[in-house]
Amino acid sequence: MTPHPFDAAIQLTPAGDHRFTGHTSPAYWNMVGPFGGITAASALNAVLQHPALLGEPIALTVNFAAALVPGAFEATATPARTNRSTQHWTVTLTQTGDDGQAQVVTTATVVTAARRDTWCASDEPMPAVAPADDVPRVDRSAAGVAWLARYDMRPLTGDMPSRWDGQGEHSLSQLWLRDDPPRVPCAASLAALADVFFPRVWLRRARRVPVGTVSMTVYFHASRQQLADSGTAHLLGQARAQAFRHGFFDQTGQLWNAQGLLLATTHQIVYYRE
Amino acid sequence: MTPHPFDAAIQLTPAGDHRFTGHTSPAYWNMVGPFGGITAASALNAVLQHPALLGEPIALTVNFAAALVPGAFEATATPARTNRSTQHWTVTLTQTGDDGQAQVVTTATVVTAARRDTWCASDEPMPAVAPADDVPRVDRSAAGVAWLARYDMRPLTGDMPSRWDGQGEHSLSQLWLRDDPPRVPCAASLAALADVFFPRVWLRRARRVPVGTVSMTVYFHASRQQLADSGTAHLLGQARAQAFRHGFFDQTGQLWNAQGLLLATTHQIVYYRE
Repeated sequence: MTPHPFDAAIQLTPAGDHRFTGHTSPAYWNMVGPFGGITAASALNAVLQHPALLGEPIALTVNFAAALVPGAFEATATPARTNRSTQHWTVTLTQTGDDGQAQVVTTATVVTAARRDTWCASDEPMPAVAPADDVPRVDRSAAGVAWLARYDMRPLTGDMPSRWDGQGEHSLSQLWLRDDPPRVPCAASLAALADVFFPRVWLRRARRVPVGTVSMTVYFHASRQQLADSGTAHLLGQARAQAFRHGFFDQTGQLWNAQGLLLATTHQIVYYRE
Repeated sequence: MTPHPFDAAIQLTPAGDHRFTGHTSPAYWNMVGPFGGITAASALNAVLQHPALLGEPIALTVNFAAALVPGAFEATATPARTNRSTQHWTVTLTQTGDDGQAQVVTTATVVTAARRDTWCASDEPMPAVAPADDVPRVDRSAAGVAWLARYDMRPLTGDMPSRWDGQGEHSLSQLWLRDDPPRVPCAASLAALADVFFPRVWLRRARRVPVGTVSMTVYFHASRQQLADSGTAHLLGQARAQAFRHGFFDQTGQLWNAQGLLLATTHQIVYYRE
């Protein structure tokens, strides 16, 4: 059976001694370099594939140090500290530069842990929105960006501006999201989904300025079973900014499954020019 | 002149080759190990003291792998990638274990960058609250925890429950905050201030369960000049949780100066038992 494009894109081959080799994916290519979400998922996957893994991902921080060039990369995932029920990982992605030297393109840290049954509560209920079936899928093919075709996106509010007239008023987007073809979410695919929101500064200003995510954090609130129970239904994504200043803005976001369970929360800080 | 207790606590001595030595501070001691905020500030300080530093801190992620024991620690700050205007750092704090081996107690990543004049906006206005002078300082001395005396905290809403009766209803706290003695904020002190909020699960449940922060991220939105302009006035801190599940809850927070400028946004994920 042909693997899902997402699984093919994040596939890693063990290369011994905490090392793995991977390859950038044309299916998830962005304008310059891969879609950041797929780089985040690949970094996380190095931990998930590591034989010493304890538990499930709780937290992921990915720092996008440089755009990957098309081709091979090496992932190193090191268990920096293993406790009784939590494990702290450092991850580095490198590519060989023109000078033949390995250059760091991505750094990441991951915390994994054994999940336990405890008291639970949600303080961030899913917004009341129209069901995914009632919302048309947006067509982004005109952008000519490969990775956009890998997601079924159905904007509810805060869609990409239709007029770039500099008259933006807020930074909030809500949309239904799903892998295309549909795929049951896992921690790695949530890490990628956390990066699908178009740049908040474009919405806020109704102006397309050059941007690049610098660092992204994802907290995983759902167990493996809860992810499996989410099925292939759309997820609701929400993102907004808090501050735009001195060439950087932040984004804070949430991903719920169709039943309203909060699967992940995410934050990122993004460079913008002008 | 005697240095401020905060500066004394995060002081590092260069030890060559990206390395520094530091010492835990009794003045910022928590129940088991140092106050997490001071560990975060120390990790950031290793970058700030590094001779190769480019620009100012933009993002900090600290992973609390183990409680530090009282005594010396070593900090290693490595510039993993230096670009034209951004720099990516990896930081590790280690202590020598009973077996004489260096053990990782903290990992961190830091992004620094040259700030530039750009279009700016805030999408997270400071809540309308009573001025700090009109709000009494809370007395936490009964807790017998050293670091609590290092902060002047003036709760507005969501104070520590006065009755631990299991009847909590929300996870939102707002309070005025200031170092004691007063100190003009810097990136390192903001990193510490981002961790002063008592555990959201205590507020949400009105029940004190064992907790420990696992990972914290801080995004710095203010320039050095804006921090200096904040003076020694109180900062307004706000924190709330989004999800409590399977032994982990998240916290999302903001720090504004008294003039209403958003200085930093912060997120953390925290272990809790039961």
